[in-house]
Amino acid sequence: MREHPRVVIVGGGFAGLRAARGLRRASVRVTLIDRQNHHLFQPLLYQVATAAVSPANIAQPIRKVFRRQHNVDVVMGEVRGIDAEARAVRVGERAYTYDWLVLASGARDSYFGHDDWRAFAPPLKTIDDALEIRRRFLGAFERAETGRDDASRRAALTFVIVGGGPTGVELAGAMAELSDHTIRRDFRAVDTSTARIVLVEGRGRLLSQFDPKLSEIALHDLHDLGVEVMLDSMVTSIDASGVSIERAEGATRIETANVVWAAGVRASPLGAMLGAPTDASGRVEVDADLSVPGRPEVFVVGDLARVLDGATGGDVPGMAPGAMQMGSHVGEIIAGEARALAAGRPAPARTAFVYRDKGMMATIGRNRAVAQLAGRRVGGMLAWLLWAGVHIFYLIGFRSKVLTMIEWAWSYVFYERGARLITGVDAERDDRDA
Amino acid sequence: MREHPRVVIVGGGFAGLRAARGLRRASVRVTLIDRQNHHLFQPLLYQVATAAVSPANIAQPIRKVFRRQHNVDVVMGEVRGIDAEARAVRVGERAYTYDWLVLASGARDSYFGHDDWRAFAPPLKTIDDALEIRRRFLGAFERAETGRDDASRRAALTFVIVGGGPTGVELAGAMAELSDHTIRRDFRAVDTSTARIVLVEGRGRLLSQFDPKLSEIALHDLHDLGVEVMLDSMVTSIDASGVSIERAEGATRIETANVVWAAGVRASPLGAMLGAPTDASGRVEVDADLSVPGRPEVFVVGDLARVLDGATGGDVPGMAPGAMQMGSHVGEIIAGEARALAAGRPAPARTAFVYRDKGMMATIGRNRAVAQLAGRRVGGMLAWLLWAGVHIFYLIGFRSKVLTMIEWAWSYVFYERGARLITGVDAERDDRDA
Repeated sequence: MREHPRVVIVGGGFAGLRAARGLRRASVRVTLIDRQNHHLFQPLLYQVATAAVSPANIAQPIRKVFRRQHNVDVVMGEVRGIDAEARAVRVGERAYTYDWLVLASGARDSYFGHDDWRAFAPPLKTIDDALEIRRRFLGAFERAETGRDDASRRAALTFVIVGGGPTGVELAGAMAELSDHTIRRDFRAVDTSTARIVLVEGRGRLLSQFDPKLSEIALHDLHDLGVEVMLDSMVTSIDASGVSIERAEGATRIETANVVWAAGVRASPLGAMLGAPTDASGRVEVDADLSVPGRPEVFVVGDLARVLDGATGGDVPGMAPGAMQMGSHVGEIIAGEARALAAGRPAPARTAFVYRDKGMMATIGRNRAVAQLAGRRVGGMLAWLLWAGVHIFYLIGFRSKVLTMIEWAWSYVFYERGARLITGVDAERDDRDA
Repeated sequence: MREHPRVVIVGGGFAGLRAARGLRRASVRVTLIDRQNHHLFQPLLYQVATAAVSPANIAQPIRKVFRRQHNVDVVMGEVRGIDAEARAVRVGERAYTYDWLVLASGARDSYFGHDDWRAFAPPLKTIDDALEIRRRFLGAFERAETGRDDASRRAALTFVIVGGGPTGVELAGAMAELSDHTIRRDFRAVDTSTARIVLVEGRGRLLSQFDPKLSEIALHDLHDLGVEVMLDSMVTSIDASGVSIERAEGATRIETANVVWAAGVRASPLGAMLGAPTDASGRVEVDADLSVPGRPEVFVVGDLARVLDGATGGDVPGMAPGAMQMGSHVGEIIAGEARALAAGRPAPARTAFVYRDKGMMATIGRNRAVAQLAGRRVGGMLAWLLWAGVHIFYLIGFRSKVLTMIEWAWSYVFYERGARLITGVDAERDDRDA
């Protein structure tokens, strides 16, 4: 009996997982490679950053996800090279050969060339990022509590979020609620509700990928929560003492030690590593079937791919639904080709990928959201319930669903966020032996 | 109306919290200082290290604990100096004056002078320690999975725990179960149950503070779980490739990259900082009422204090029950003196502290434990239920209790440990822009 053909999938996010799951009945040997040992439910990462849930609520060990799918081998490692001629990827000292390759390594943060800003403005892409933001956020209130004067308190309590997409909007809303309600009674010297939360967006409206009406609702809701929103505003520099912003009215500066970067993404470097045609942000310009031009055995899915949405004329948004659909599509193609191969038949013709817009949503605070679905727009509490339901549904693992529901219910009723811990190395405490 | 007298409590662990709670009806202003923002339930820290629960299950923000106790101000900071003459403690730039001072800053790890071992063998005292151990533990299995040969797999899968007290015993039992059951089906190339777990203890028996019969039961149970126990064995060196051990039979070496240090503690440096009489490990030799000789307004409680247990002739063990009782005792004394002060009466005579041994327990795996209470010894499942009940009872916060019970129930029924995430900076992934 001949050995099964091999599929190598790089990336255990939404796209990679869907592709691997799609191959569960295929006669292939799948190797799924990821730098982390866990699949992260990114849409809820901002909740780890604002101390509402613990990391384990929104992440699953990848091995656990595929425990019962015996044709999948999980490898924790980083791809350092792709040899498209030899059809192998290199991870550390090992090479994994493939008959089909699926690149699903996603996107990472982009500081538009200003990588020095990263030290002052962490991004929000991984659990470690979220814990760092949490640490700085909660730590800011601690510092304000023992601050010597009003000026230092004011600077300690100013929070700037750069980027008015879903991440920035959700983070701003959650931070405002935390300061106004949840931790207000925890502090005596400082009134945490006086915290200044500023959301800076370069375009003319928030949530630019959403319907304009929803951008308005989001702006209105954030104002209701006390968030200052600066539109048409570009960040020109970030350093230890604050942020400089350029607007039509001129330049302005905000003194702050608390900045979060939610403004730019660029694709993982694997597209370039492969030598495939990419756009300015590194996304691979794939063919209609999501394969790399000239290399039909190599597919690119998720945020790493640049795919046209025929319905709108724009790109398929780099969010979970698109990634999941692309992963499923590629899984189907490969499964069909493997089946044909095993039966000695010619491979079926490949179908083009068609993105089905099942709607988008963003939450603002604990009982508001904006959602658009099938041409209809929803706001307020109804949208929030819809948002909650959809996210719980897509969380992987029954246990995660149960725990998250409990956390949310608790938080909703009691305004209590359950993970308000400050952890992580603090440089000033390194002198343990002093 | 004259201003209330002030109490400064350093340390938000079991002892400090009890002292502060004991002052809830006293006419005093309490300032509680801690380096962390949370109170940590240390007895369950090993469960964070073995991926069974999340940090938020076993830690509470100190501010939340005292939210409704309005005479308490919480300060997050580190005490850098104590001026006993001026009656003030220094935290950063600020000085906090006191009428009574309670030092409850506990113990930290001790490498018996070999601080260079710390890099290779992390301790288990804080959440960050637990997450580091978890990262190395889970990471070891990942490395074994992609290991090139049996020798490297073997080294990757050898775990050494130094110290046979409750911490070491509980850690060893949990690690053995994790390898044998929980994650066994997650890995394909390596059989995780072949993991070698070694517990090294310098004395002749484990749990030396317990009844000898229970030490035997613990040894038997660990053997049942496949743990190798080395008694009368002293560690002579630890480096990146392994551990050297000295025994009666001669020296031996274990090749391993996974070592945990659970062997030594020494007191926080605040005793010495105060200039009080201390023993070899830094514990303050307090008077019968737990105050510092010659300084009746300064008390020392918890692991920082050296207190005689009249019943046994030995020291009160440095564990939670002793700390809680000492904290309560001091809280009562100060409350009584504050009351007398407010009424213009002379202070009542102080009572001596008497330790009430309410028993000790240690768990081994998911359904075994050893416990001794009022002269009776219990082992097996019954002891485990007792252990579980007691620990749930003492966990602070209803939400923590609910979540931990769910986590344990889940884990018990499904052998599923819910927090198997590898997080934390990995040096080899620092080249984010590559």
